Amino acid sequence: MSLQIIPSISAMQQLAEQVRLEGKRIALVPTMGYLHAGHASLIARARSLADVVVVSIFVNPTQFAPNEDFARYPRDLEHDKKIAEGAGADIIFNPTVEEMYPAGFSTTIDPGDVAQRFEGKFRPTHFRGVTTVVAKLFNITKPHIALFGQKDVQQAFIVKKMVRELNFDIQIEIAPVVRENDGLAMSSRNTYLSKDERERATALFKSLEHARKRILEGEKNLELLQLEMKKIIEASNPAQIDYIAFIHPDTFEELHSLETQDIIIALAVRYGATRLIDTFHIHQPALL
Amino acid sequence: MSLQIIPSISAMQQLAEQVRLEGKRIALVPTMGYLHAGHASLIARARSLADVVVVSIFVNPTQFAPNEDFARYPRDLEHDKKIAEGAGADIIFNPTVEEMYPAGFSTTIDPGDVAQRFEGKFRPTHFRGVTTVVAKLFNITKPHIALFGQKDVQQAFIVKKMVRELNFDIQIEIAPVVRENDGLAMSSRNTYLSKDERERATALFKSLEHARKRILEGEKNLELLQLEMKKIIEASNPAQIDYIAFIHPDTFEELHSLETQDIIIALAVRYGATRLIDTFHIHQPALL
Repeated sequence: MSLQIIPSISAMQQLAEQVRLEGKRIALVPTMGYLHAGHASLIARARSLADVVVVSIFVNPTQFAPNEDFARYPRDLEHDKKIAEGAGADIIFNPTVEEMYPAGFSTTIDPGDVAQRFEGKFRPTHFRGVTTVVAKLFNITKPHIALFGQKDVQQAFIVKKMVRELNFDIQIEIAPVVRENDGLAMSSRNTYLSKDERERATALFKSLEHARKRILEGEKNLELLQLEMKKIIEASNPAQIDYIAFIHPDTFEELHSLETQDIIIALAVRYGATRLIDTFHIHQPALL
Repeated sequence: MSLQIIPSISAMQQLAEQVRLEGKRIALVPTMGYLHAGHASLIARARSLADVVVVSIFVNPTQFAPNEDFARYPRDLEHDKKIAEGAGADIIFNPTVEEMYPAGFSTTIDPGDVAQRFEGKFRPTHFRGVTTVVAKLFNITKPHIALFGQKDVQQAFIVKKMVRELNFDIQIEIAPVVRENDGLAMSSRNTYLSKDERERATALFKSLEHARKRILEGEKNLELLQLEMKKIIEASNPAQIDYIAFIHPDTFEELHSLETQDIIIALAVRYGATRLIDTFHIHQPALL
């Protein structure tokens, strides 16, 4: 199957229905395009799990606030076609904003309180936009399995919760963060960084590595760990640290002690006008 | 196929998936049980449209407010089995509240402003409960077509809007109100009425019939029509008239003149502690 580009919702639905009727499995990799090696690894993984791999490319306006970077978010369909096909995609679904959100659109999916924490404090309507568009993409591409990146760790948690609670019969796989050689998490937004900001942004990975090392050595004082991470990041002269959080992986509530076996650390930091997020999932062997 | 009773979500999903893989069509009739002739007509219509007819029976707690009749809503599965099988159902899906809403449940579907009008003024969280459970039932029973009654006219509008906006690949059919001989719309809640209340409640149908006659005769004064309907209903000594509304069928906004070809009249009236709703959809031939 050579790469097909499908912009129409109804054409995509009909094709997906036909594929399912043939007993074939569909995998969906939802993206906002400007594909990088992180996306390629998701697509390659999808290729190994399904008969037909759909990559959706849609810069979803409803997950951006009015003051955010929707208009300048990078777009390059020709580049994306090469990356997607190279990684094994069969179909790119790239609908228009007008077809996805016709006049009068008002139905949204509200993830509940978890959408107001961490990222939600800085982007209060973001996750409602994410769950709504993901549900739409599920209903349009009809996947058996959908793959998301671990970098957006709160998104991954919220999507899994939505799938479970709304009974979407879809398996969700979360794939590890893919990083540049110096540790910076791959992101389409890295393209916004100046050369200088790009260098300073390695502090995020360094702070996470530091915390992991300290936790595995047995440190239990969260306030101290947070302070140490903050110092490492502050030394890189960021425009703002939005949050550095220790999170329970089952409830996505903030941890007040390190007595759980698994810990998520998540952070969001701005360099110039660019907002970056990163995360580690740490297993404490001492508690096994 | 003799009637199957399936309480498990995963068993229902697996069966639905198997049926779809065989190329058969599934019709869903979502109900809260205590089936009456209105439900039977929906099931019979579903029978004529699909290979497998699923009737869901679930008294959905999230569409009742704390002060409403969730606890006393009538339930009778043995009776429902007979009605459903007699009308041609293949499967009754009757999950538990605990399986539908496990601890920590927080994902809801928000229909937007339309859910705050008419019924929504008196039941502000009602339609959010409806859309959420209907989406769940769609994902569990995987229908090609789902049938709803016209009596709950705002619900029908909101469900169709959700299906369109979230891209559920499901055909929605709205079936006409089924009435008792004296015009009272069939409803499981009619069982709450005392003999006296039951008789007085025929005023709802009479008021709608009066409005239809007056509109078809050419009356354009909405305030006058509303007043005339109100007088007919008030003569029946109701506990409260919640609303009598003239509604645009495309936008579900309140009409301020009768210049549209199609008009929905909807009303909600209480007799004793029982809240009844009814509706007419009127086509004005003069505007054809």
